[in-house]
Amino acid sequence: MIEPTTLTVSGERFLARYDFTGDQSTARERAERLCVEQTIEFPADLVGDDDIRRHVIGRIETLAPIAEGVVRAEISYAVETSAHELTQILNVLFGNSSLLPDVKLVGIELTESLVAHLPGPRFGIPGLRDLLDAPDRPLVATALKPMGLSAGRFGRMAGEFAMGGMDIIKDDHGLSNQPFAPFEDRVRAAAEAVRAANDRTGGRTLYMPTMNGPHEQLDDRLAIALDAGVGGLLVLPGLTGFDHLRHLASRDDVAIPLMGHPAFLGGFVSSPTGGIAHATLFGTLMRVAGADVSVFPTHGGRFAFSPEACTSISEACREPLDQLRPIFPTPAGGMTRDRVTDVVSFYGPDTVLLIGGNLHREDDLVRSARAVRDAVG
Amino acid sequence: MIEPTTLTVSGERFLARYDFTGDQSTARERAERLCVEQTIEFPADLVGDDDIRRHVIGRIETLAPIAEGVVRAEISYAVETSAHELTQILNVLFGNSSLLPDVKLVGIELTESLVAHLPGPRFGIPGLRDLLDAPDRPLVATALKPMGLSAGRFGRMAGEFAMGGMDIIKDDHGLSNQPFAPFEDRVRAAAEAVRAANDRTGGRTLYMPTMNGPHEQLDDRLAIALDAGVGGLLVLPGLTGFDHLRHLASRDDVAIPLMGHPAFLGGFVSSPTGGIAHATLFGTLMRVAGADVSVFPTHGGRFAFSPEACTSISEACREPLDQLRPIFPTPAGGMTRDRVTDVVSFYGPDTVLLIGGNLHREDDLVRSARAVRDAVG
Repeated sequence: MIEPTTLTVSGERFLARYDFTGDQSTARERAERLCVEQTIEFPADLVGDDDIRRHVIGRIETLAPIAEGVVRAEISYAVETSAHELTQILNVLFGNSSLLPDVKLVGIELTESLVAHLPGPRFGIPGLRDLLDAPDRPLVATALKPMGLSAGRFGRMAGEFAMGGMDIIKDDHGLSNQPFAPFEDRVRAAAEAVRAANDRTGGRTLYMPTMNGPHEQLDDRLAIALDAGVGGLLVLPGLTGFDHLRHLASRDDVAIPLMGHPAFLGGFVSSPTGGIAHATLFGTLMRVAGADVSVFPTHGGRFAFSPEACTSISEACREPLDQLRPIFPTPAGGMTRDRVTDVVSFYGPDTVLLIGGNLHREDDLVRSARAVRDAVG
Repeated sequence: MIEPTTLTVSGERFLARYDFTGDQSTARERAERLCVEQTIEFPADLVGDDDIRRHVIGRIETLAPIAEGVVRAEISYAVETSAHELTQILNVLFGNSSLLPDVKLVGIELTESLVAHLPGPRFGIPGLRDLLDAPDRPLVATALKPMGLSAGRFGRMAGEFAMGGMDIIKDDHGLSNQPFAPFEDRVRAAAEAVRAANDRTGGRTLYMPTMNGPHEQLDDRLAIALDAGVGGLLVLPGLTGFDHLRHLASRDDVAIPLMGHPAFLGGFVSSPTGGIAHATLFGTLMRVAGADVSVFPTHGGRFAFSPEACTSISEACREPLDQLRPIFPTPAGGMTRDRVTDVVSFYGPDTVLLIGGNLHREDDLVRSARAVRDAVG
């Protein structure tokens, strides 16, 4: 038995929603175990009637079936368990329980003091619309690809897409620092080409290079990108961690929008009964971590997300969530020019359309980009 | 059509193994698409007969059924696509394809130049055995818990476990910088208590604090830990990224062993047909990234890993893999004192037994630890 402990706690509690597969009585038992697993990870019978039991162990707030064989629990945690750190918030929400079968994290609610530590998206939908002087139309984005081209050719390509009026041009998520087009050469070439195009057209195209790279080089790459005058950053939290995104969103010297990419996050949504709900992962968590734009594979493309999953993601990007700004859902992964109208009608105008390789079906990239830009009004 | 490109490549190629659910002909088609998805992510018909097609697009080396409805493909990638960066290696192996249903990453093979950039485990099984003067017995480890205790109490607890002869005492994975026991206070108290105990007993117990924390504080926490003279580090790559582990394993000033923890990685193993194989994630990737010890939930505990999955992880920790040192599999998650003999007989002597809360079933922690230590010889 652990000696009884007295603690000072604020009473502020954040909340997670979990769906348990099974009937109500086993769900309650599993929810009770989860309250322990996610916090003290210690035999509950060895904790007496003290403040650890009262405050540190998670607390079931509600528990009720939501569908045949699915029981939803709302579990709250003392804000102190999170140390107000995003890494530890994620750890409390789903660290060990990510390893459990048949429990899915389907929602989170922060608290006032957590939001104060997690500023969330710096721009969000309204800020990015201001920056691009695009008050209400869907935005259009594309990527520099394919891997294998030189920095010079990517620079030329970026300039052409900017001349064609694309709002955002990002590095393909697979570009990092390959010898074909080293990071610094590529970023300087693309940033310069986009600036030159903007100067000619009066446009505001943003070039967003990738911040995927070795831990000890992330700061140097950021410095290069900022020095080159890039318009935003592409961040891959599956590879560099959600807290890297939060870090970039919190830095005073990074006053540019961030695009979150789903690479290496798919495992979390690969099981119907475990992992993290699409909306929670690609909507809520991206937003909490500070992405202004969240990329995900749209239904009907190369991936297999359902229309319902895609709708849920776009809703999670935009719905009220503490005081965090709404962000742009960005359906991608097989988007084509002829789908633009359908996609806009499915997702609505507060959407970034990300069209990659398909723009190259026409050799004149300026014209190809312009056609997409014109299609969104 | 992209203008033909000429590239200089080494010819060195790394390899991934994927299991596709389905029949052989659809598997071949999906493997071909995966070769494109993981590299150029660009319409293949727009790439001519050039060096991008020849070298950058992944290449199917073998493809054959391995079981009813499961087809295994070996796909190789030019080492240049990885930029010799772990983040980008993971991106090429499974970045976008983690989002595909019914394909599982089940194995990887590096190349000589990749291994040169990824030193892997600094100690591995032989190095950690030397450090602990334990040439052949299983090792025993425990954790400081439950969250809610003060730094002083964790310090006392660490001293008692060290007096009892535990080989490794780690922070519970849920401890970070909570107000109950702030990081610096806890780390200094535990490191000092373990040092004092080692001085008294002549033992070599290693205390390993967690390196889970905000991106911009990771270096400071490392500096505090090193200054306190800790014996190793606990790393949570699901939260801070696999490359953070690699970074720590590569730093000259971090000449201590690293323990990799599975928190927030479970999503990858939650689907039978998607995600990453248990052995690849908790064995191979932890080892490639530089963990000397890889923690995973053992069968028969609080989690639901099968005995077969656990065996596969321990094999992947120890089997020949390029020139990387073998590492200690560390079954955990509900280990108890009375299971020690069974667990050792299941996993063999090259194992770290991680027993947490169960040690507290006896109030005398020195005696409780000693009983476990004695049980392994």
